[in-house]
Amino acid sequence: MEARPTMPVIEKETESGVFQQIAEYRPPASWRTWLFGRPLASADAPHQTIGKAIGLAVFASDALSSTAYATEEILLVLAAVGVAAFVYALPIAIAIVALLTILTLSYEQTIHAYPGGGGAYIVARDNLGELPAQTAGAALLTDYILTVSVSVASGVAQITSAYPFLFPYRVSLSVGLVLFIMLINLRGVKESGVTFSIPTYFFVAMMFLTVGIGFYRYITGSLGMVVGPPPLRAPEMASISLFLILHAFSNGTTAVTGTEAISNGITAFKEPKSHNAGITLIWMSVILGTLFLGITYLAIKMGAIPSEEETVISQLARTVFQGQGLLYLAAIAATTLILVMAANTAFADFPRLSALHAGDGFLPRQLTYRGSRLVYSRGIVALALIASLLIVLFKASVTALIPLYAIGVFLSFTLSQAGMACRWWKAGHLTPGVEVQEPGSVLRHEPRWALKMGINGFGSVCTAIVMVVFAATKFRDGAWIVVLLVPAMVVVFFAIHHHYRDLARHLSLEEYGSAPRIARHRVIMPISGVHRGTVAALRYARFLSDDITAVYISMDSAETERLRSKWESWGDGVRLIVLESPYRLFLEPLLGYIEAISQHRQPNETITIVVPQFVPRRRWHNLVHSQAALWLRMALLFKRGIVITDVPYQLD
Amino acid sequence: MEARPTMPVIEKETESGVFQQIAEYRPPASWRTWLFGRPLASADAPHQTIGKAIGLAVFASDALSSTAYATEEILLVLAAVGVAAFVYALPIAIAIVALLTILTLSYEQTIHAYPGGGGAYIVARDNLGELPAQTAGAALLTDYILTVSVSVASGVAQITSAYPFLFPYRVSLSVGLVLFIMLINLRGVKESGVTFSIPTYFFVAMMFLTVGIGFYRYITGSLGMVVGPPPLRAPEMASISLFLILHAFSNGTTAVTGTEAISNGITAFKEPKSHNAGITLIWMSVILGTLFLGITYLAIKMGAIPSEEETVISQLARTVFQGQGLLYLAAIAATTLILVMAANTAFADFPRLSALHAGDGFLPRQLTYRGSRLVYSRGIVALALIASLLIVLFKASVTALIPLYAIGVFLSFTLSQAGMACRWWKAGHLTPGVEVQEPGSVLRHEPRWALKMGINGFGSVCTAIVMVVFAATKFRDGAWIVVLLVPAMVVVFFAIHHHYRDLARHLSLEEYGSAPRIARHRVIMPISGVHRGTVAALRYARFLSDDITAVYISMDSAETERLRSKWESWGDGVRLIVLESPYRLFLEPLLGYIEAISQHRQPNETITIVVPQFVPRRRWHNLVHSQAALWLRMALLFKRGIVITDVPYQLD
Repeated sequence: MEARPTMPVIEKETESGVFQQIAEYRPPASWRTWLFGRPLASADAPHQTIGKAIGLAVFASDALSSTAYATEEILLVLAAVGVAAFVYALPIAIAIVALLTILTLSYEQTIHAYPGGGGAYIVARDNLGELPAQTAGAALLTDYILTVSVSVASGVAQITSAYPFLFPYRVSLSVGLVLFIMLINLRGVKESGVTFSIPTYFFVAMMFLTVGIGFYRYITGSLGMVVGPPPLRAPEMASISLFLILHAFSNGTTAVTGTEAISNGITAFKEPKSHNAGITLIWMSVILGTLFLGITYLAIKMGAIPSEEETVISQLARTVFQGQGLLYLAAIAATTLILVMAANTAFADFPRLSALHAGDGFLPRQLTYRGSRLVYSRGIVALALIASLLIVLFKASVTALIPLYAIGVFLSFTLSQAGMACRWWKAGHLTPGVEVQEPGSVLRHEPRWALKMGINGFGSVCTAIVMVVFAATKFRDGAWIVVLLVPAMVVVFFAIHHHYRDLARHLSLEEYGSAPRIARHRVIMPISGVHRGTVAALRYARFLSDDITAVYISMDSAETERLRSKWESWGDGVRLIVLESPYRLFLEPLLGYIEAISQHRQPNETITIVVPQFVPRRRWHNLVHSQAALWLRMALLFKRGIVITDVPYQLD
Repeated sequence: MEARPTMPVIEKETESGVFQQIAEYRPPASWRTWLFGRPLASADAPHQTIGKAIGLAVFASDALSSTAYATEEILLVLAAVGVAAFVYALPIAIAIVALLTILTLSYEQTIHAYPGGGGAYIVARDNLGELPAQTAGAALLTDYILTVSVSVASGVAQITSAYPFLFPYRVSLSVGLVLFIMLINLRGVKESGVTFSIPTYFFVAMMFLTVGIGFYRYITGSLGMVVGPPPLRAPEMASISLFLILHAFSNGTTAVTGTEAISNGITAFKEPKSHNAGITLIWMSVILGTLFLGITYLAIKMGAIPSEEETVISQLARTVFQGQGLLYLAAIAATTLILVMAANTAFADFPRLSALHAGDGFLPRQLTYRGSRLVYSRGIVALALIASLLIVLFKASVTALIPLYAIGVFLSFTLSQAGMACRWWKAGHLTPGVEVQEPGSVLRHEPRWALKMGINGFGSVCTAIVMVVFAATKFRDGAWIVVLLVPAMVVVFFAIHHHYRDLARHLSLEEYGSAPRIARHRVIMPISGVHRGTVAALRYARFLSDDITAVYISMDSAETERLRSKWESWGDGVRLIVLESPYRLFLEPLLGYIEAISQHRQPNETITIVVPQFVPRRRWHNLVHSQAALWLRMALLFKRGIVITDVPYQLD
């Protein structure tokens, strides 16, 4: 047991005249302090803001890290026809960068419209209603989980590319990494920027170096081909099909996941917030697009082969840097780090979004609880567990996880932009000068509403098409799981919401007269013997009411006779009822009796069950006692108007 | 939920004048009825007795079944030197049969001295004291577990000898068989005799047929050698040693396990009980000795090789019956059946003995509880679980389990016979005509006490020597586990006993004056909000005492303000204490407060914690509520003089 400090009780008289005391409780140090750090008071919540350079580092890791696997996943689909089909990879990459451009323009508008933070959930809730909002939320939550699974699996794949002897341990390594990130997040990440800047800028620098030197070598003709590439699987098809191209395209769209991150975190930026956030978004997209195109172009030119054994990034780096030297290892380390940072981003987003849902009553309210380090600890643990489960189920294979990934992102993109389009329509039809306060932002007249609605509307249509292509081409590979899961989640969300609303209505004191008086109070006291514990409980029962009935379950007639005669000396004249139990059951006859009594109850009659509960000195002693009192409580908890009182009897 | 029938309540006035009601409870039909059979009332316990022929069938399966593996285990040890050493098997078997004779004479005396049942536990308790009795009991319990593991593993080995393709599944098959026997025993085995007679006599007949034909063929010279015997492992030693012979001997002594079974079950026999039981014992020993010698002799002559792949019984049967025909399969089936019956015997003995220990307060009293089918269900389940665990740990290998087996039997033999020797000494020094009532039997003067003491004493010394040889030769192979386990069990038994005695003393009403009066009654009511549930709980608290304090844990100051103003309208003037919890903890501040209050308590002051507990309509709803009331109860249960009352509030 932890030591429990006595509380400093401060007495204080309030204006209302009701006497009140205020005390503060500070938890004592324990092993938790060592593992998670010293507890933080609610007042300790940080209120710092960050600039553009650091903002890029904080919010871009998810988006930028997808360059580590997007190219590979495109090539993997094309490999079904053979190496010749790899020429299609570049046009596909260009199409994806075009999509990225549309998304960037669209989100730039969201950032300016929602300076308080414009995640898909909030935008959909304000403009489209509960159902689209919950759908967007469910989609995003699903995707955050997959971000963790995919990023960590890909990070571990980078490591096992450099050190192939670790390949058999990839599942354990991945799960270990998820739990490590969980622990870091439970301690609470100080978003000090510096911690984030190092890996992000290290990755950006290393990738530009790799791609830059790669291009230089390519132009000067000294690049050459990948030495000893992993084996290519045998082609399954004779010729390329539209389906295959679309499939490759949707695999590649994982590159644009994470684009929405900045729009969620606008409040973290320095003033002017929206302006700074918008510029950061554009920078992020430019870097992402450049790297993605560069990596894809070089990968094709040098004959990289997509494989579970060695990532395309590893093949690229060792070809560009001509061997597995220091620069190669730096590139691999940077890629692994950014992937871990991407997973870490999901650990910030998932708990925040689930707390938002819980606050609105669509998820268990416990998710709004902030732990000792001011983080939403339950959301963090839930995310780590589900992501680990996925890693184990899909054996830490990025290729196996990819079909589940990104549908959610595109669904939320679609809903968010559709919401924005709606919003511009409303803004366009508002009288200039009028301001409408919405839950998430302020709505004003917008003269250029048609253009803005066009941009968001076009973005919405594009992402909707991508989503449908995605779901269709990858349905059988695993996308069906998400297609079923998201609606199921929405159903659960609404069921929870219904329950909370129903509960609030039933507990409300509005239109509630006054509580009816208790007219009669019956006490029923089950006993298993006559001893000091029974006598103590009887004394307590006497204090509650004069109408007491002791109940004994008889399994052995000789023992019952002994009990009867003992009760005559110690029972204080209280009525004793013996229930014969020829089938040696204890709980059932007692419950049956209580049921019979409570059926013949008068109105306003309360029944209290006083249970003498023997409390042993040591915990193991409980093993040698039947926990009848506990079972009785469990069984009676769901009965109406029956109060259960445990009278403990401790040994000296 | 099962349907709960209303109870027929019968009212009845007793002589003492205290008004009483008697009701009977009969459980409704459920899935349990289907699985375990209709519940049996205590009055349904069978009281039938059996004759000698059926008695032999009921009690001999454990002893007779050991012929299925005893020879093999002797040969296995001798194989360390090579086939040449197999000639020692016959003298070893003769020595074991001599031991069996001594045991039979010794137990014959026990049977007559303890007509009410003379298990080692009872004999040791009456004549040697608690410690030897508990030791004998611990040893026997250990051995019953091993009887199940070894018999089932050997039974499955017979099956896999006939059907080698099942060999990889031997662990699952064995565990499945244990669970099947458990289920049969939970339903309650009707010891109708017929069910037992068929497999026992089938086995005896098949073995006599096998051995008989074997001898005929051997004498007529048509027996031949085992065709394609399993491979012999390479010899590890150059020459035979005394250690090896003793090791082989102790492996072979597993043949005499089960000899004690009849002395435990004398009461089941027809009158004259002791006479009938004694004759049955002698018959059992004669059959066992004959079969064991015959099997061993033939096995050596036909060159059987001990092996995990094919049992010696299988090799014997297919050589005698010249192939795997119908007679071979019948012999294998009979052997498997008798082994299963042996395991089944342990399922009767273990629960009965553990209930005996529990009744004396050396094991948890729950073990004396008889389930719906009048069997000691908890002991049955415990036995099945531990035996299955052993099978899994030792991979269902009889050879690996054997070193653990039989030490316990020989320890209990030794203690039981030493107890008998003591008893004869006492009987010899008693005045003729005087009768001393002991817990387990009646002690009378015995003129031939010296002879009888000699027989039991000699038996005791012999079994003690065997036990020491056993422990020494097999110590490293696994016997050390039992050598450590039995004393550890005895320590636990006495710890439990001490706890029960201590408890009885503390709960005893002797020298207990009258319960002190309750002088002051304080009520503390933790609240999490002001709603109908709170109001209902407050109304109940009002009924208990005028000294009520409501306690609210504040984590958010705005919410606390709202609560305060609501309390002013609904709080009925009751004092409200607000505990600030800047670290967002709920339970700890509340416990700290209750601790502080209870430290400043007056003598005879009782504190009742009234917890408003919201009871949701459906069980899954509990998932979306923090179970604060439950945690509070768990934390407070161990506090002195604090009574906890849950006031449930159910939704309509």
